[in-house]
Amino acid sequence: MADSLDRILRAIRPLDSSAMASAQNRQDNLTKPAGSLGRLEELSVQIAGIRGVAIPALEHKAIITMAADHGVVAEGVSLYPQDVTGQMVLNFLHGGAAINVLAGHIGARVIVVDMGVKEQLSLPGLLCRKIDSGTRNMAQEAAMTHQQAIDSLEAGIEIVQDEAGKGLDIIGTGDMGIGNTTASSAVLAAISGQSAARVTGRGTGVDNEQLAHKVSVIEKALSINQPDPKDPVDVLAKVGGFEIGGLAGVILAGAARRIPVVIDGFISGAAALIATGLSPQVKDYLIGAHISAEAGHRFILDYLGLKPLLNLNMRLGEGTGAALGISLAEAAVRILSQMATFAEASVSEAEPPPDK
Amino acid sequence: MADSLDRILRAIRPLDSSAMASAQNRQDNLTKPAGSLGRLEELSVQIAGIRGVAIPALEHKAIITMAADHGVVAEGVSLYPQDVTGQMVLNFLHGGAAINVLAGHIGARVIVVDMGVKEQLSLPGLLCRKIDSGTRNMAQEAAMTHQQAIDSLEAGIEIVQDEAGKGLDIIGTGDMGIGNTTASSAVLAAISGQSAARVTGRGTGVDNEQLAHKVSVIEKALSINQPDPKDPVDVLAKVGGFEIGGLAGVILAGAARRIPVVIDGFISGAAALIATGLSPQVKDYLIGAHISAEAGHRFILDYLGLKPLLNLNMRLGEGTGAALGISLAEAAVRILSQMATFAEASVSEAEPPPDK
Repeated sequence: MADSLDRILRAIRPLDSSAMASAQNRQDNLTKPAGSLGRLEELSVQIAGIRGVAIPALEHKAIITMAADHGVVAEGVSLYPQDVTGQMVLNFLHGGAAINVLAGHIGARVIVVDMGVKEQLSLPGLLCRKIDSGTRNMAQEAAMTHQQAIDSLEAGIEIVQDEAGKGLDIIGTGDMGIGNTTASSAVLAAISGQSAARVTGRGTGVDNEQLAHKVSVIEKALSINQPDPKDPVDVLAKVGGFEIGGLAGVILAGAARRIPVVIDGFISGAAALIATGLSPQVKDYLIGAHISAEAGHRFILDYLGLKPLLNLNMRLGEGTGAALGISLAEAAVRILSQMATFAEASVSEAEPPPDK
Repeated sequence: MADSLDRILRAIRPLDSSAMASAQNRQDNLTKPAGSLGRLEELSVQIAGIRGVAIPALEHKAIITMAADHGVVAEGVSLYPQDVTGQMVLNFLHGGAAINVLAGHIGARVIVVDMGVKEQLSLPGLLCRKIDSGTRNMAQEAAMTHQQAIDSLEAGIEIVQDEAGKGLDIIGTGDMGIGNTTASSAVLAAISGQSAARVTGRGTGVDNEQLAHKVSVIEKALSINQPDPKDPVDVLAKVGGFEIGGLAGVILAGAARRIPVVIDGFISGAAALIATGLSPQVKDYLIGAHISAEAGHRFILDYLGLKPLLNLNMRLGEGTGAALGISLAEAAVRILSQMATFAEASVSEAEPPPDK
């Protein structure tokens, strides 16, 4: 295992229980019935534990959107031509995509990373960490080499390191890659032991016949490659993708640096499976933004023990769900830091009701 | 029926189907798979229909938080002393309450209205529309007179009229009133025909014994007053509250002025029952922010046909859920107005998959 990944894995620690106790105590003294802000209260306590401070602030927000191509599209698993991956990267850089709009809405920066797009892209604002010009076709051979899997994880780790230097208090994960629901379903099936048929969905919108074909392609990829469910790097190499590996690296580095990581949809969820496979402690650093409309997503959320904040029937990726989740996380910490306590506001606390 | 209420009811029109068709067409041409932003897409189309423009903007946002006291607290239905209503109004005006924090988070102004708080409050920033110093005890007599019910509705109508002059593109409803879950359960039971036991919840947190007592108080109020389920003003007068009437007026005036109204939790929902009882068309102008933890809320959402955007186990009121809902509504219209189309961004659209 390469040094950088190894160092990150050793740096991941439990949440700060003292900060969490302080945050919970403060929540219980704010001018509202205890518990009446539900999930927002829980979220604020989790974030206190992640950041290691009783009253955290989320000033610097970033969505890290990683793009890559997938050799398996040669099998006809997507409605969209492979060129769309690179075209959408251009769209991200020009600010015209959904993630740009939603990141603007929540005041987050978008970090666009080429982890392995087929075309050569060289554009202002694009971070180039291209491992290769797309993965190989996993229905015929391993998607990537073991070393490429390690390299993709370490690329994600490095990006968090660079971005942390600019200020980074919360991360949202995002993806773009034609064919990447196929890779993500394969990763999920390999790690969870669920059948491909159960965990494979319609991606960008395939019909029943195309869905059956997609399942058969995933079954073939799993059968040919025999990924080891106990070895997340092996699963990533054999049936994953460069953006999935990069995002897994982002998640690991976020946990190591005590930065909450808001997980987007299905592809980000597959990355979280790789990351938590390498370090189960990482789960505590994750916030599940939403449950997507992609069929397999609920298996990932259940596997990770994440309760999604939103259920808006979204299935776009890019980090769009994560952006909305970050806004809720920010609302949660603002409640903790900005509300008055009963004592400060001279508001009476609950008492037994008067006798009738 | 007073002139102002009558005029508002006659001004409520169907949604603008032409604006909705234009918005839907634009959604289908934005650079994402059609439908992949789920509820956000639906929300943008609804808001286009409400505003009557293909690409609406939500620049001016306001939470209207109405406070009043309830005579029924003499029966011991709440954990909190009645003084808390007035104390929380002060907290709103000093910016220390949850609604202040969440309104700040989403960039909305908070309009605090005294609809009938027991204490005499005179404070900078407080709108005084006090109908009376709290309702009477509905377990012994009607909560208010028929004229007071009309007056509370018209106070809400006037506030929207005044605020619209300052710019108002979306409204969130909010409430404060010790004892108002009791009144809201009574309104819901009266209008829906459900039993008090089914639609009554724990409010700010009563235990099982207190809950059984609360149900018996509501049953007594319904039995003594016999509100007419077909006459929403009669229901409001006999078992409602001044803030519930005021919010019903806000909702009616919002619909008449083609302003989307984001409904908060249980008390706002009771107000929506009164408003939609007076004009069923109003339902199309409503956005259900969330499903609260208060037991009866799902009956209201079902009755109104509202699909809540959020499920965060919140039960605070004040407009806190509405604030989070407004942020999602704003995200939805930003997607519509700011994303690039496939043609603008030179991104390829979906095609049949290549032959295997």
